[in-house]
Amino acid sequence: MTTCIDLNSDLGESFGVYKLGNDEQILDYVTSANIACGYHAGDHNVMHRTVKMAAEKNVGLGAHPGLPDLTGFGRRTMAVEPEDVYNLVIYQVGSLQAFARLYQQCLNHVKPHGALYNIAAKDAVIAQAIAKAVYHLDKKLVLFGLAGSALIKVGREMGLTVAEEIFADRTYQADGSLTPRTHPDALIHNPDQAANQVTRIIKEGKVRATDGTDINMRADTVCVHGDTPQAVAFVQKLHSALQKNNIKLQKIMVK
Amino acid sequence: MTTCIDLNSDLGESFGVYKLGNDEQILDYVTSANIACGYHAGDHNVMHRTVKMAAEKNVGLGAHPGLPDLTGFGRRTMAVEPEDVYNLVIYQVGSLQAFARLYQQCLNHVKPHGALYNIAAKDAVIAQAIAKAVYHLDKKLVLFGLAGSALIKVGREMGLTVAEEIFADRTYQADGSLTPRTHPDALIHNPDQAANQVTRIIKEGKVRATDGTDINMRADTVCVHGDTPQAVAFVQKLHSALQKNNIKLQKIMVK
Amino acid sequence: MTTCIDLNSDLGESFGVYKLGNDEQILDYVTSANIACGYHAGDHNVMHRTVKMAAEKNVGLGAHPGLPDLTGFGRRTMAVEPEDVYNLVIYQVGSLQAFARLYQQCLNHVKPHGALYNIAAKDAVIAQAIAKAVYHLDKKLVLFGLAGSALIKVGREMGLTVAEEIFADRTYQADGSLTPRTHPDALIHNPDQAANQVTRIIKEGKVRATDGTDINMRADTVCVHGDTPQAVAFVQKLHSALQKNNIKLQKIMVK
Amino acid sequence: MTTCIDLNSDLGESFGVYKLGNDEQILDYVTSANIACGYHAGDHNVMHRTVKMAAEKNVGLGAHPGLPDLTGFGRRTMAVEPEDVYNLVIYQVGSLQAFARLYQQCLNHVKPHGALYNIAAKDAVIAQAIAKAVYHLDKKLVLFGLAGSALIKVGREMGLTVAEEIFADRTYQADGSLTPRTHPDALIHNPDQAANQVTRIIKEGKVRATDGTDINMRADTVCVHGDTPQAVAFVQKLHSALQKNNIKLQKIMVK
Repeated sequence: MTTCIDLNSDLGESFGVYKLGNDEQILDYVTSANIACGYHAGDHNVMHRTVKMAAEKNVGLGAHPGLPDLTGFGRRTMAVEPEDVYNLVIYQVGSLQAFARLYQQCLNHVKPHGALYNIAAKDAVIAQAIAKAVYHLDKKLVLFGLAGSALIKVGREMGLTVAEEIFADRTYQADGSLTPRTHPDALIHNPDQAANQVTRIIKEGKVRATDGTDINMRADTVCVHGDTPQAVAFVQKLHSALQKNNIKLQKIMVK
Repeated sequence: MTTCIDLNSDLGESFGVYKLGNDEQILDYVTSANIACGYHAGDHNVMHRTVKMAAEKNVGLGAHPGLPDLTGFGRRTMAVEPEDVYNLVIYQVGSLQAFARLYQQCLNHVKPHGALYNIAAKDAVIAQAIAKAVYHLDKKLVLFGLAGSALIKVGREMGLTVAEEIFADRTYQADGSLTPRTHPDALIHNPDQAANQVTRIIKEGKVRATDGTDINMRADTVCVHGDTPQAVAFVQKLHSALQKNNIKLQKIMVK
Repeated sequence: MTTCIDLNSDLGESFGVYKLGNDEQILDYVTSANIACGYHAGDHNVMHRTVKMAAEKNVGLGAHPGLPDLTGFGRRTMAVEPEDVYNLVIYQVGSLQAFARLYQQCLNHVKPHGALYNIAAKDAVIAQAIAKAVYHLDKKLVLFGLAGSALIKVGREMGLTVAEEIFADRTYQADGSLTPRTHPDALIHNPDQAANQVTRIIKEGKVRATDGTDINMRADTVCVHGDTPQAVAFVQKLHSALQKNNIKLQKIMVK
Repeated sequence: MTTCIDLNSDLGESFGVYKLGNDEQILDYVTSANIACGYHAGDHNVMHRTVKMAAEKNVGLGAHPGLPDLTGFGRRTMAVEPEDVYNLVIYQVGSLQAFARLYQQCLNHVKPHGALYNIAAKDAVIAQAIAKAVYHLDKKLVLFGLAGSALIKVGREMGLTVAEEIFADRTYQADGSLTPRTHPDALIHNPDQAANQVTRIIKEGKVRATDGTDINMRADTVCVHGDTPQAVAFVQKLHSALQKNNIKLQKIMVK
């Protein structure tokens, strides 16, 4: 039996003279590109370049809107109002839609970035603001969020196609949450181990938590990182391992 | 005989806690709103609010993209590359298009702001970058530029509907250029005098220059300012005077 | 018996073309100026202008460093690291010190702004980072903080002169905290009532809380706002009322 | 005979998560560090780190103020007013002075960055604004500028110690100006050739221009770049070659 999964990566995170990530190579292995929109990373030139590359490689185009915090790369939690979040999603995704249209493309998905992603995983009011903005922008956009999160729940209730996301290089705790990065066993450095964890989640709907118990976990999309020196090799090996395990990589289609 | 003219104003220039302009009142008198898009002024909340107000008052929605210079309000000339200009227009207009779509509206026009407007009036390469971006965004967008400028010429050659713009409160020199603000007679403070100058340009295609000679001048749209204490009264009086002179105010229609 | 109190106001909050507050007039009534340093408001031109005016009017010069959040005016809580806070205080206060030196002045005090002020009132680690930065910048700087807050406690332990701050136009709850702005009785609009509350805090060390009970409260400095249309009249009346009550207004001197 | 020269490099150009340059290694070879101050590059954390490293390695601390243009890395010419330039130099250098004082250091020099450097090389009014700001900040600061430029002339007239700067990896034209980067022979990639050119300028006051003629050239300081992969090796070899040629490397002392 062949199963499908989407492989996504956060891309277009360079800014001005500052280069970040190995976008061109990562785009050879992923099926969805989450492209930064200028608030936490990226600028209008980087956005254009990244959209063009992703379109040429037939990778699903997605917006990756973040909080207005370039110094903190959008990773710092901020006390944001729902209306403000609604508008910052409209603004950022709207600008990326315009670049996509230059290449006769529609955006395929939206995935909030960093602190916005984390807030939306727990705070239903902010999740609602994001989902509503996505719905108003284009009902056919797929909404990416942490598997089992408030954002997924809210998006699904609203009628959006949602994609539950897991992380290829992260371990999970018994309650289904990601092991915090401060723990020694938070990260999976071995691509085979990562592939096995991903394969089991996809095929059995289960993952071994850090305390040794098996918990339920589902996934529509797997996030891989592109900004470390080892990133390309990791993604390449994960890509091969998944194919070897009869898992087909393809972007999410709207139901 | 009734003649038509568009009356436009630069709006949505508030930012965060900072308020600028009397947008709500000005919108009662103009037919086109040029809305700032966050680079030189405006933010995503202000953009939403301004688009909503303009749409409700049935005023033509336009984008007013500027250089990335919030401290200088986009008024400082910068050495920008054509590709950079192309992309910053796509980005800013794209984000405003998204807000317009929330109200089932299309943008009607694009008018570059401040230094970008002035550069595009003379520099055909930058004018080309702007016009191309507008054309790629939506062929049906009207391109606003200084009457007789490089931007108008380039936009027309590209097949865009263009709107030649004059300023209600400014005088002209014998060569057709605006009298620099440093001159004592640069500004017209009397709304009747402004209305007469505008009326004559529209009906006769002529304006009396500061040296007393008559020169040819044409106009599709007249800019009025909204950010001074006297602005609303000036626009109101100009509006009445034009109607008294049998000049009908309506937004530009794409040919 | 004459008692002394400092009257302070947040000033220099204009930015580029955006004007905020009535700094010139407010400076006639206050004894300490908290000047924004460019992160949440203010820019290098506004800073220079404000330092010059305050120095000429012999008002105590203070830095008002904030979080890097111009869109949110530094009012939004952010998850900031202590080291980051230490450095952003050094940067902002350092830049204001340079403007003060142009007028042969030393800064007199530092008061964190907005969300940074609120975080430092409760979070001892962030309070420590701010106090340490102030101490390293200049041991003779007075540290302003909410009366009874973590910042006051930490600053005092470090050996800094601290100034406990109350707000002229705010009421207090039974636990000594400010009544949240969402409550109908949070604000005092009557300057006489404000003067009476301030006088009683200064002379008796007591304030009537919103539930009618008397609680202990002390104050070294009183904050007045300068950014509303009624601000100047309010400050002027408060100023007169305090003098009538034999309370002398003077800036805090380092012990 | 031993002659002296200063070797300087633009450092502290990282920003947030974005890394630029090999500061730690370059600091082993240069005698002066020009540290970005947050307007075109750098942030308060990077500034602190860079000041600390440079102080520990006993490298002369210098401020490298730029135009407010993070997206363009301060390389784009902008139409700036002299008063604005004066204030932006005070602000940026003031903030770096504060970091230097944390390590009981004074700043040694100021070198304008990018477009500001180029404008000040030709425009005496802007050069005057910069020199006056430096003079007001601290008369003992050395002012770095392009050899033979308006900035050097103006600074010297004002009574500042100036340092005429040449570039180790650039060729010169017959009129003494740098060969534009668009020319094929603009750059010197061979460190021995660079060392020979520098040595000749220092010892003979002459350089061979690109047209083959010898022209007069003087230098107090030599700029080396730190942001390319080959930068460290180039600087290391230049450093050795200069020592072999009996040229002692030391920072500029104020007369």
